[in-house]
Amino acid sequence: MCGIVGIYGHPEAANMAYLCLYALQHRGQESAGMATSTGDEIHQYRDMGLVADIFTRKVLEKLPGHSAIGHVRYSTAGESERKNSQPFVIEYRKGVLALAHNGNLTNANALRDKLEEDGSIFQSTMDSEAIMHLIALSQKKTFKDRIVDALGQVEGAYSLVFLDEKNLIAVRDQYGFRPLVLGKLDKAYVVASETCALDLVGATYERDVEPGEVLVINEKGLKSYRPFERPKKDCHCIFELIYFARPDSMAFGHSVYETRKGFGRQLAREHPIDADLVVPVPDSGVPASIGYAEESGIPFQLGLVRNHYVGRTFIEPESEIRHFGVKIKLNPVKGYLEGKRVVVVDDSIVRGTTSKKIVTMLRKAGAKEVHVRISSPPTCWPCFYGIDTPTREELIASTKNLSQIKRFIGADSLGYLSHDGLYWFEKESRGEWYCDACFTGNYVTKLVDAPHIEKLVSGKL
Amino acid sequence: MCGIVGIYGHPEAANMAYLCLYALQHRGQESAGMATSTGDEIHQYRDMGLVADIFTRKVLEKLPGHSAIGHVRYSTAGESERKNSQPFVIEYRKGVLALAHNGNLTNANALRDKLEEDGSIFQSTMDSEAIMHLIALSQKKTFKDRIVDALGQVEGAYSLVFLDEKNLIAVRDQYGFRPLVLGKLDKAYVVASETCALDLVGATYERDVEPGEVLVINEKGLKSYRPFERPKKDCHCIFELIYFARPDSMAFGHSVYETRKGFGRQLAREHPIDADLVVPVPDSGVPASIGYAEESGIPFQLGLVRNHYVGRTFIEPESEIRHFGVKIKLNPVKGYLEGKRVVVVDDSIVRGTTSKKIVTMLRKAGAKEVHVRISSPPTCWPCFYGIDTPTREELIASTKNLSQIKRFIGADSLGYLSHDGLYWFEKESRGEWYCDACFTGNYVTKLVDAPHIEKLVSGKL
Amino acid sequence: MCGIVGIYGHPEAANMAYLCLYALQHRGQESAGMATSTGDEIHQYRDMGLVADIFTRKVLEKLPGHSAIGHVRYSTAGESERKNSQPFVIEYRKGVLALAHNGNLTNANALRDKLEEDGSIFQSTMDSEAIMHLIALSQKKTFKDRIVDALGQVEGAYSLVFLDEKNLIAVRDQYGFRPLVLGKLDKAYVVASETCALDLVGATYERDVEPGEVLVINEKGLKSYRPFERPKKDCHCIFELIYFARPDSMAFGHSVYETRKGFGRQLAREHPIDADLVVPVPDSGVPASIGYAEESGIPFQLGLVRNHYVGRTFIEPESEIRHFGVKIKLNPVKGYLEGKRVVVVDDSIVRGTTSKKIVTMLRKAGAKEVHVRISSPPTCWPCFYGIDTPTREELIASTKNLSQIKRFIGADSLGYLSHDGLYWFEKESRGEWYCDACFTGNYVTKLVDAPHIEKLVSGKL
Amino acid sequence: MCGIVGIYGHPEAANMAYLCLYALQHRGQESAGMATSTGDEIHQYRDMGLVADIFTRKVLEKLPGHSAIGHVRYSTAGESERKNSQPFVIEYRKGVLALAHNGNLTNANALRDKLEEDGSIFQSTMDSEAIMHLIALSQKKTFKDRIVDALGQVEGAYSLVFLDEKNLIAVRDQYGFRPLVLGKLDKAYVVASETCALDLVGATYERDVEPGEVLVINEKGLKSYRPFERPKKDCHCIFELIYFARPDSMAFGHSVYETRKGFGRQLAREHPIDADLVVPVPDSGVPASIGYAEESGIPFQLGLVRNHYVGRTFIEPESEIRHFGVKIKLNPVKGYLEGKRVVVVDDSIVRGTTSKKIVTMLRKAGAKEVHVRISSPPTCWPCFYGIDTPTREELIASTKNLSQIKRFIGADSLGYLSHDGLYWFEKESRGEWYCDACFTGNYVTKLVDAPHIEKLVSGKL
Repeated sequence: MCGIVGIYGHPEAANMAYLCLYALQHRGQESAGMATSTGDEIHQYRDMGLVADIFTRKVLEKLPGHSAIGHVRYSTAGESERKNSQPFVIEYRKGVLALAHNGNLTNANALRDKLEEDGSIFQSTMDSEAIMHLIALSQKKTFKDRIVDALGQVEGAYSLVFLDEKNLIAVRDQYGFRPLVLGKLDKAYVVASETCALDLVGATYERDVEPGEVLVINEKGLKSYRPFERPKKDCHCIFELIYFARPDSMAFGHSVYETRKGFGRQLAREHPIDADLVVPVPDSGVPASIGYAEESGIPFQLGLVRNHYVGRTFIEPESEIRHFGVKIKLNPVKGYLEGKRVVVVDDSIVRGTTSKKIVTMLRKAGAKEVHVRISSPPTCWPCFYGIDTPTREELIASTKNLSQIKRFIGADSLGYLSHDGLYWFEKESRGEWYCDACFTGNYVTKLVDAPHIEKLVSGKL
Repeated sequence: MCGIVGIYGHPEAANMAYLCLYALQHRGQESAGMATSTGDEIHQYRDMGLVADIFTRKVLEKLPGHSAIGHVRYSTAGESERKNSQPFVIEYRKGVLALAHNGNLTNANALRDKLEEDGSIFQSTMDSEAIMHLIALSQKKTFKDRIVDALGQVEGAYSLVFLDEKNLIAVRDQYGFRPLVLGKLDKAYVVASETCALDLVGATYERDVEPGEVLVINEKGLKSYRPFERPKKDCHCIFELIYFARPDSMAFGHSVYETRKGFGRQLAREHPIDADLVVPVPDSGVPASIGYAEESGIPFQLGLVRNHYVGRTFIEPESEIRHFGVKIKLNPVKGYLEGKRVVVVDDSIVRGTTSKKIVTMLRKAGAKEVHVRISSPPTCWPCFYGIDTPTREELIASTKNLSQIKRFIGADSLGYLSHDGLYWFEKESRGEWYCDACFTGNYVTKLVDAPHIEKLVSGKL
Repeated sequence: MCGIVGIYGHPEAANMAYLCLYALQHRGQESAGMATSTGDEIHQYRDMGLVADIFTRKVLEKLPGHSAIGHVRYSTAGESERKNSQPFVIEYRKGVLALAHNGNLTNANALRDKLEEDGSIFQSTMDSEAIMHLIALSQKKTFKDRIVDALGQVEGAYSLVFLDEKNLIAVRDQYGFRPLVLGKLDKAYVVASETCALDLVGATYERDVEPGEVLVINEKGLKSYRPFERPKKDCHCIFELIYFARPDSMAFGHSVYETRKGFGRQLAREHPIDADLVVPVPDSGVPASIGYAEESGIPFQLGLVRNHYVGRTFIEPESEIRHFGVKIKLNPVKGYLEGKRVVVVDDSIVRGTTSKKIVTMLRKAGAKEVHVRISSPPTCWPCFYGIDTPTREELIASTKNLSQIKRFIGADSLGYLSHDGLYWFEKESRGEWYCDACFTGNYVTKLVDAPHIEKLVSGKL
Repeated sequence: MCGIVGIYGHPEAANMAYLCLYALQHRGQESAGMATSTGDEIHQYRDMGLVADIFTRKVLEKLPGHSAIGHVRYSTAGESERKNSQPFVIEYRKGVLALAHNGNLTNANALRDKLEEDGSIFQSTMDSEAIMHLIALSQKKTFKDRIVDALGQVEGAYSLVFLDEKNLIAVRDQYGFRPLVLGKLDKAYVVASETCALDLVGATYERDVEPGEVLVINEKGLKSYRPFERPKKDCHCIFELIYFARPDSMAFGHSVYETRKGFGRQLAREHPIDADLVVPVPDSGVPASIGYAEESGIPFQLGLVRNHYVGRTFIEPESEIRHFGVKIKLNPVKGYLEGKRVVVVDDSIVRGTTSKKIVTMLRKAGAKEVHVRISSPPTCWPCFYGIDTPTREELIASTKNLSQIKRFIGADSLGYLSHDGLYWFEKESRGEWYCDACFTGNYVTKLVDAPHIEKLVSGKL
């Protein structure tokens, strides 16, 4: 996953972008970068690591200008090299262009093959490089038309901010997979993945950048274009609401915190149990467990404490004796769990190994019964729109049924939120405006780069 | 504040000590260090920074042996140099000796003056150096007797672990200000500031090291000595229970989480209010606010979200425009607070400036009323036993009365927990076994190094 | 300037390339990099800094394979960013391709403009990126033909090593501006900028890669191609012999040390003087001054001592009182110079400021007379073939005549080596096989990217 | 070995001390440090590494004041920890005291045992700590008298600079083993190990601090004391002249460069040979080989080129194939040596392994004959006065005779400078004013800490 930000028209654009990236750090802890424009020149800096470590005062001083874009990135290990950090900055015949991208293209490989066939060279493994090539190759006359031309050939999920010497451009794919919000900070414009970034710099939330919208911000002000035919329904990533977004953000027009609490309330209705405590898996399970507790009347307790110092640098010592795993992060409040029937609430089960360790940990801490409640449906399908998920084979819910999963994790009972319950906050639509392919396999785009899954979901396998 | 650990008799002593320090990271984030013994030789390493950054695999490999002591340290800015990090390692006529110290001596300056007068040299500004001199100067014959001799001249708070080539020694001052627990990990002994360190390495909690107790652990096993006359009552730091210890720890025989919840329940009884939400100041205010919510029946909500990426390296950008302060750390869940009457629960008010910013933040997020509830009595006096507090003049409660504080922080109402309420968990004793000098000014030791405060509390000023 | 190396068929290719780069460190101290091939995959690493700092054991372990190319780079300050470090690695339709380049193209900007016009994007400011685009765009069928196609469009100086999964390719431009030698190390092939790199790894020098030659080395062995029409005469950079190459290297078939000594001997014949000592400006002036001393019979003395710890990190302190400049690097042997008539020998005068400081320094150390002797003709023209020279305006010899320069630097006499004397080692050819445009303005290629100089030298201005 | 510097009365004391340390870098590359005084407060900084890496602008800014002392250190691997870096700073009853020490005490262990017996604690393994204890324990009334009292108990080699809030004190042991010079920089005083440090900052050399002299510099000016009885003869370390000091320095009143040239001339007279070239082992062998060449009439040639980028960080790659050893540092100028009879001049032979490799290298480069000439007598005894030498057993000249050494290193002939020849520059004295115990075993002090050697040289073994 990634987080992006763009600032236009602020005397301290780099400082503001830095703070926004800092607020978006939960969307990617592997690398961070920024490009700024003085109106004449683009400056850039990117490195591996955390925002607070990368952007020292000295680095920020070398990023002058009144506009900026920034990026934080998380990616799977194999691809986490510096060359894949963003913003992606190129020179082409129209000057310098910088891009920060949140999302994932579903035809990136196909595009890349075609571009390479025509003689293009690639220096990274990022989707975004293909977008840059397409823009540079476009014969259209205006900047906007080149963007439209390029993005017209692209499929998948993308929230984008472009920066050139004079313009900040924000684009969201026509399905609106990934969030992107627009705010104002005095006279400056701010676009960011989440509203929590606006909050930190004191910007007011104006509205979401709409699916398929192209925003051009320059000295003439802000102009909105809608060059792409918009599908009848949006396709927002439901996992942003379940897990990814910060609880203090608004996502797709909904309070993340409130929505998650509702998941918990629904879960309590669907999977009630006679128990003594509701305990969240911190931090992501907290709002849903508050909802579960409210609805069920079972007291909410912070029965698992999280060590927040687990950072990028933590390395479990090479012990010959035992492995510590999830204990490094979580520790139960023992006295409290002794002899208790515990409902433990988490947002999802991926491989099942962490859940298994948590159940074991709670039992060792004295819990008499452990009832696992998951505030989303079973995760059966990989995401091709920007969330790093394991392969289908590794997703426990794609190979095991409910009672097998229950047995694997060692719970006394296991309840997932139903598909209907998931969309409690969109009663009428029943989720028709959301992408929940990770639960259903209903991928809205063709999966050009993943033919096996494409065949599987289209019944051809 | 600091955290300490000692391991004896474990084949991977450094690895275990590393994990324990990691679990104790909340007690000090400025420096960390370790000394290990192979039985013949002491090895050591210490540096500024976080445990996970300092103890790389390479560093751990250079710390061989079956016994280890470790230390994490937080201290006020002016004194945070590397030379003040611990363990403190010396050579003296009996060999090499390493020491890790949690606490603060109240006659350190006086001792130091006397030692310097007699020709001693000092290379740090740590209290612990005086203890080392006293041990080296002692004419007593046995190691135990030299320790007793030295500590007999010392006043104040100290939980100590010593390591020499053959022995691990753990000592707690006769008042038991700071916690120190004893655990077993297979055949190895572990002593640590808190039980959460035992939990991480899988050690079982045996008992607290008792006030005034000297534990000597070597190849003959563990031996306990009680060379110091123990006062009739212990004097445990009540602030460990209010704020400092991790909620999943047991401290002074009490579940920290449970005790804090009780503070919240008491607070609800003492300062009830008609409100819509109970919101904690995360993370330390969470347990008390759960208690407040339970007792009052007002729903608990995570209305303030904490950014856990605020690390040592974060530097607020030099903005000419505005300062961001507490916003860097906390952000309200806006939708949720709109038009609501909010009870916000924090553990204490020190200078008042943070509380003021939080109240403002909640109002800006739409809260109609903000009622501040503090899960401890007013902090009026500085701590001389190991907690870094500002001077008396800077403590808002020492110069302003309740309604002045309320006005300063801008709350609609303000309620502190009463002294009686504080000791709900020790009903009969009414806190007689605790040090609460920060609330009362009742310092149990003489404040040799702080004559002004000494006069003030003894009525001589 | 830059240094390059290529290894094929060695079980420890990265280790060998590392040592070669280390031997070539004098050709570039700003960044270093390496790409290796396992036969299936390309690995790479590059960073700012010195070879010995960049290639730690850990980094070398991540560069597996039996073939490798490497690069060290020096460049002017403004362009010394990480993105401009080499090897330059791309993916294109035929796979992965890595390139290390020593030299400078004279039509790079023009090529770049054209490529951008056709839709190419650029991510660096390096010439080498244009070469990569041309290769990727070539429609030729074989790898060799694509290289030839690409390089056929390029003008200027280039010694190149390419690495793909299966092949190591070495190319030298048809003029042979920059050196490139071929060696063998057991069964492995080594190509490198200078023979001193072969020496360190124990490789035997086979021959120079010839101007216009393309060497393809793969599992079938080494094959040589000569696709480019070779001009009647080579055009080797005379400055490699004067200053750049290490004295223990062979360059263009000549011993660098011996050639430089000869410059000194010639200089003594052309500009004799009655003096007491011959003193070199260390280290580059040493061989010529030995020659001067031998020929003149005046004793050679190491009258200026160089501090070799002046590294990349040295920063002259911000003193309000005085600036230290060349004193940081050089210090005279005072007792020795007292009352002496000194001949000081340097390889060239660029701006004149350093020479001025050296003359002053020698006088302060007691020298009665200071006679400056330069082992090359006056440097009047900028280099467009890979040496970083200031603009023509900044070259003192382009704006001042001999007596003005003498006065500026404060010498008692000044003598430059004559053009004829320079070519003492190529008696018959009188330098016809060398590029000495820096002295004469006779640039052998068109200066497409430098139209002003082009006009100047072609008499159109 | 170490280098020290002291500055008093300069507005940029830290900057000047930094430059001096930089000029003294050849005396120690392992750690560096500085302490400065503002008149009221002492500031300090020390770290492992090179002067230019440690003293960044930021570090220098934190070292305010008009006086400063500094230190560079080299030590054997086992003891190169940060705690052993200097200046050594303590607090004692009279305030803060900083010390930088060049030299080695011969009764440090004995002193330490005694001090520990009396209850002192040690935090480093440095001799200097014992001096600090003695000063702090002294009952004398004045600062000068305490110093005298302390140093009166000390034996061995020491050049010292002390700094307290108000005074800079420079002391040299009564034998004058290590150099220490006094200079003036405008109104400021500078003391330093070598004159090259004075040269860099532009200070004028006044005189040597005399053996047994105590210089006290404060606001009243400079005052000289001679509290120690001075032996009839000084005992300057002859190895400073042979190898250690920089050739541009004056040491013990002699030009280092000139003295070394004289060694070479003497060597030519004592061990003439019919040869074609004189080649130095750079850099230390250069002056002597110039002298040898002058005297013998055999041409001087720089036949071995040194790679100056061999730094602290260089790690020879772990090759399974071959080891590179001295080749990393030195490379012969091949063409030049082909078929030649070579005289190679080095300053000393320690273990013999490096000489052996150099001889082999020269032969491989084509030398027909290799004649080794050493510009000092055979090194048979370890140094106890501050130079890091191997044990007696490892010194090749203590276990092998001349022809055995010749055979071991593979030379055609081998000649050491005679004892008489060594003192060519002190004709009458025949070296009576120098310590040459490394050649003769005539240690002027008792070797309290080295009883085995003591017995050996006193004939008791």
